[in-house]
Amino acid sequence: MLKIALLGCGRIGRVHAASVAQLPGARISAVVDASAEAAATLSALTGAPAMNGADAIADADAVIIGTPTDTHFDLIRTAAEAGKAIFCEKPVDLSTDRILRCIDIVARAGVPFMTGFNRRFDPNFATLRDRLVAGDIGTPEIVTILSRDPSPPPLSYITSSGGLFRDMMIHDLDMARFLLGEEPVMVQATGAALVDPEIGAVGDVDTAAVLLTTATGKIAQISCSRRATYGYDQRIEVHGSGGLLRAENQLETTVELANATGFRRAPAQHFFLERYAAAYLSEMTAFVAMVTQGTPPSPSIEDGLRAQILADAATRAWSERMIVMV
Amino acid sequence: MLKIALLGCGRIGRVHAASVAQLPGARISAVVDASAEAAATLSALTGAPAMNGADAIADADAVIIGTPTDTHFDLIRTAAEAGKAIFCEKPVDLSTDRILRCIDIVARAGVPFMTGFNRRFDPNFATLRDRLVAGDIGTPEIVTILSRDPSPPPLSYITSSGGLFRDMMIHDLDMARFLLGEEPVMVQATGAALVDPEIGAVGDVDTAAVLLTTATGKIAQISCSRRATYGYDQRIEVHGSGGLLRAENQLETTVELANATGFRRAPAQHFFLERYAAAYLSEMTAFVAMVTQGTPPSPSIEDGLRAQILADAATRAWSERMIVMV
Amino acid sequence: MLKIALLGCGRIGRVHAASVAQLPGARISAVVDASAEAAATLSALTGAPAMNGADAIADADAVIIGTPTDTHFDLIRTAAEAGKAIFCEKPVDLSTDRILRCIDIVARAGVPFMTGFNRRFDPNFATLRDRLVAGDIGTPEIVTILSRDPSPPPLSYITSSGGLFRDMMIHDLDMARFLLGEEPVMVQATGAALVDPEIGAVGDVDTAAVLLTTATGKIAQISCSRRATYGYDQRIEVHGSGGLLRAENQLETTVELANATGFRRAPAQHFFLERYAAAYLSEMTAFVAMVTQGTPPSPSIEDGLRAQILADAATRAWSERMIVMV
Amino acid sequence: MLKIALLGCGRIGRVHAASVAQLPGARISAVVDASAEAAATLSALTGAPAMNGADAIADADAVIIGTPTDTHFDLIRTAAEAGKAIFCEKPVDLSTDRILRCIDIVARAGVPFMTGFNRRFDPNFATLRDRLVAGDIGTPEIVTILSRDPSPPPLSYITSSGGLFRDMMIHDLDMARFLLGEEPVMVQATGAALVDPEIGAVGDVDTAAVLLTTATGKIAQISCSRRATYGYDQRIEVHGSGGLLRAENQLETTVELANATGFRRAPAQHFFLERYAAAYLSEMTAFVAMVTQGTPPSPSIEDGLRAQILADAATRAWSERMIVMV
Repeated sequence: MLKIALLGCGRIGRVHAASVAQLPGARISAVVDASAEAAATLSALTGAPAMNGADAIADADAVIIGTPTDTHFDLIRTAAEAGKAIFCEKPVDLSTDRILRCIDIVARAGVPFMTGFNRRFDPNFATLRDRLVAGDIGTPEIVTILSRDPSPPPLSYITSSGGLFRDMMIHDLDMARFLLGEEPVMVQATGAALVDPEIGAVGDVDTAAVLLTTATGKIAQISCSRRATYGYDQRIEVHGSGGLLRAENQLETTVELANATGFRRAPAQHFFLERYAAAYLSEMTAFVAMVTQGTPPSPSIEDGLRAQILADAATRAWSERMIVMV
Repeated sequence: MLKIALLGCGRIGRVHAASVAQLPGARISAVVDASAEAAATLSALTGAPAMNGADAIADADAVIIGTPTDTHFDLIRTAAEAGKAIFCEKPVDLSTDRILRCIDIVARAGVPFMTGFNRRFDPNFATLRDRLVAGDIGTPEIVTILSRDPSPPPLSYITSSGGLFRDMMIHDLDMARFLLGEEPVMVQATGAALVDPEIGAVGDVDTAAVLLTTATGKIAQISCSRRATYGYDQRIEVHGSGGLLRAENQLETTVELANATGFRRAPAQHFFLERYAAAYLSEMTAFVAMVTQGTPPSPSIEDGLRAQILADAATRAWSERMIVMV
Repeated sequence: MLKIALLGCGRIGRVHAASVAQLPGARISAVVDASAEAAATLSALTGAPAMNGADAIADADAVIIGTPTDTHFDLIRTAAEAGKAIFCEKPVDLSTDRILRCIDIVARAGVPFMTGFNRRFDPNFATLRDRLVAGDIGTPEIVTILSRDPSPPPLSYITSSGGLFRDMMIHDLDMARFLLGEEPVMVQATGAALVDPEIGAVGDVDTAAVLLTTATGKIAQISCSRRATYGYDQRIEVHGSGGLLRAENQLETTVELANATGFRRAPAQHFFLERYAAAYLSEMTAFVAMVTQGTPPSPSIEDGLRAQILADAATRAWSERMIVMV
Repeated sequence: MLKIALLGCGRIGRVHAASVAQLPGARISAVVDASAEAAATLSALTGAPAMNGADAIADADAVIIGTPTDTHFDLIRTAAEAGKAIFCEKPVDLSTDRILRCIDIVARAGVPFMTGFNRRFDPNFATLRDRLVAGDIGTPEIVTILSRDPSPPPLSYITSSGGLFRDMMIHDLDMARFLLGEEPVMVQATGAALVDPEIGAVGDVDTAAVLLTTATGKIAQISCSRRATYGYDQRIEVHGSGGLLRAENQLETTVELANATGFRRAPAQHFFLERYAAAYLSEMTAFVAMVTQGTPPSPSIEDGLRAQILADAATRAWSERMIVMV
């Protein structure tokens, strides 16, 4: 039975705890949070004791890091040096320099490390990727990713988030890499605060689009908005030499109402907890398999680095109105 | 250039005239209607002279009969005895006895005769049938036909229509035969006046369903309503040993609006003139090909008879609450 | 913490045990099965001891009956007389007489009783029903239920199942009642063994359709097949005075592949364990709420009786080729 | 009866001639083409005499210019100076300087001028635009246009076409302007020859994407490919403050085939003649209305200019790898 220390008892920590509870070969062995109340809540839910980080890590076989981003580096170092397997939420760090240091630390420690890009585990996107890899549409040429959150996070979150490109679009940048099968070398971007001028006032955007180009000329176009009235909009399509693969939103139900105004289906599932419920479970299953069976880390810490480099490039392309080569 | 006399200048006559105008090998040579005004209108549209029926038939190579049902018999006899090819709107006659006499007349005259079951020519249904015949779903087992008009016709029309089963469902009964590939031998039915009690007061129904069973046990289920708030609802599906074929409604546009109430597409095309526009053109193309190139009449006058027999059986099954064997 | 004895450790017992494990206010207190191996397996999964039926019932607050149908009666009596709340899988019994005796026993004991018509709890169908009740389409007029299993059960199961109408279509008959809002008074049916002649040889059908009519003329049309190549086909629609409500199948994913053959989406979810996963959890949630909070039993034992009466009537209508009034 | 001289008897000329034939208030009065054979063919189809350009223009009330792009300027000048209303296919000219001179000529002549951006008249896109203007989704924020031809044109066409951005994407650039409701001020682009290296060898691309940004930060993202295996892919969506509007492809039929591989619908309509059949008729109806009833020219010659400026900017952004401000 794999013992996992849960570092961070916020919303995402709770999701991971629920996933671990469904996995026969693993259990949460300790919960850790700066807020005693948050730790107590998850302790009650999981039956695992609340501890301080050092003790929790020492006692466990593996750690799930779901704390604020600025604490990731120290926790990764502590866990790696203690020889523990690591699952770390994205972004690994807002600084690519520090991610490089993490890569070094993790490599020297020889511990497996998985980055929390949950969307790779969404059954729809995973199936789309499987078919792409299987050659169903030949060579991919244009990846299109449409990504809209139902509503913006609090301004306080935005100011410490690293900005839309690093906080929100990083998922889409990882997905673009995952689907292109090649590294983007050129990044173009645009963006504005169309949803809430306050977001613009703090130097960020809430609406943005990016163009990525690989060395062989493959294209990914991504657009993001912090607001969608019809639910969490998460669509992907890949145009290839042999056809098209696309994944539509998951709607709340399959019910359709028809009357004089037309045929109306349900809104998209509200947000990530609903839409990616299956993805989170599959992600944690993969993490446990990585630790217990030695399957390769995927997405790896290098994937975390690459996405961060693209997010930095997109931020710079937008803010300095320039084409950024990476 | 095939000369076609248009007998009947109502709504359906106008549709057929427009179709003929698009066919290079045929033209309307005369228009005939009891109403001088209706005839004059179509004369202006087609450039063909308004005539009396006898002259129009004598002068033409073929006739399109789109007059009231109770005039069909005489027109068919006149045209057949004059050796003219005949296209006759459904129903050929409300009396199967008189249809049998028409069959005899037509056979003795040796003229080709086509019955106006336009839905067989709808590109969607025709494609569905083609795939069925090609074996895409193996052997058909359950045919489901959902048929709803946008709103009931005037009560005056209803009282002379022969009732819902003979006037409206006859199209679906023909389609069931077309798709089952076997003759139904057992007819069950139910029905009521749920849309308008006045329809019930004159002895008819506006909502009905029928179960057909063939000798080998294949099933067709049909349901009709005289009212649909969301447009003309015309759907067909066939469940077979190897899969399912279904044809959805044609919507007014492909536009979808998403907001907090969900994803809303357009209503179905309003009624038969919109939905079956392509079918009517294809039907008339087939009629001209039958006359000029000798392709077999389809749907034939026998098809008209068979559908009428089923409509009579359904009417009796409903009104006498019995199972009718045919 | 509600203690529930799980009577029957087969496939459906396992589903219910998994559901109870997710409910905070209840637990499986004992598992019972004629097969010691089946009981041991579920004991290991749930952590509850394997017991004999009498002890398990005596020790529990409530029972889940998922044993073979012919054992339901005795278990219901034992549980009722011991004052335990009862959840019983459909059919309550193949004999409506014995169901009536159960109703009497349960009423005298004053215990709450819920019948396992899981489809009422499917989020799609439940939402459709909610909207119907809310008046979104006015008065229901035609209910259409298309129900196809992926493949027939073993012949051994068929011979003891009571036949397609009682074993498979009973779910659809209950759904028709649930949606019509009125009791059917007239039952018409047809059926044949088109999938497997062996099924016909043992006196059953694998393909069937039924027409139900209520006293006010509302119609339900149901068709069933024991085989569908494209997954578990479970569709419902209600045509009403103000519009149409329909629930489509849940597909395996939202991925679509486009190439020269067209646009291809995934098959329907394979069978009931996949399609009704959410329904089973919601059903057990409702059972626990009924016992612990006193919410009304729904579907009730009377619902079980009514569906059985319709299934008997459909069987007779089919086998004796007659219209059956109920 | 409006007399229209058809200048250019190629594929698009034939389309416009067919449209005019369906309009009661107009007729083709002369056909003109450098190829006597092409002119003869359209003369036979329309019944209008083949003439030289000068005579045809002199004799007509209006002209349709569907000749090669490099002849547009002279024909526009001749027609304008003769006081004739002008319909000119896109692009008006490959040189924005010459378009500016055309604007001057047309303005001085005071003749109405309409540019042939047919997609504005597609019923789907027109409905989408109408709803956008009606405020159904509030303020538009992100316009996404996916545009793929079924297969590349001959290389000989490509070399004289002005390149993908000016020849193919110009339609999408016009559509972006039409939907954004603001002029783009910043153009970013990427592109490559992924479909056919020969296209790259002649200095063009067959796969490209563009990002447009308006002064207020609204975004349009467009991607084009010269090849799609599943038909002519023409999709548009607009994300706005109050929701989403999108228009899907028109498929060949509504038929769906389900089997173990899933649910398969038809390919998209093959190419522009099929997909935009209704648009071409509506476009010509608008042209005739402009001439006979004085409705404002739309799309105007200025629309033609604006699209050309964006196409030039996109070409430069791609070829020089720079951000182009317009």
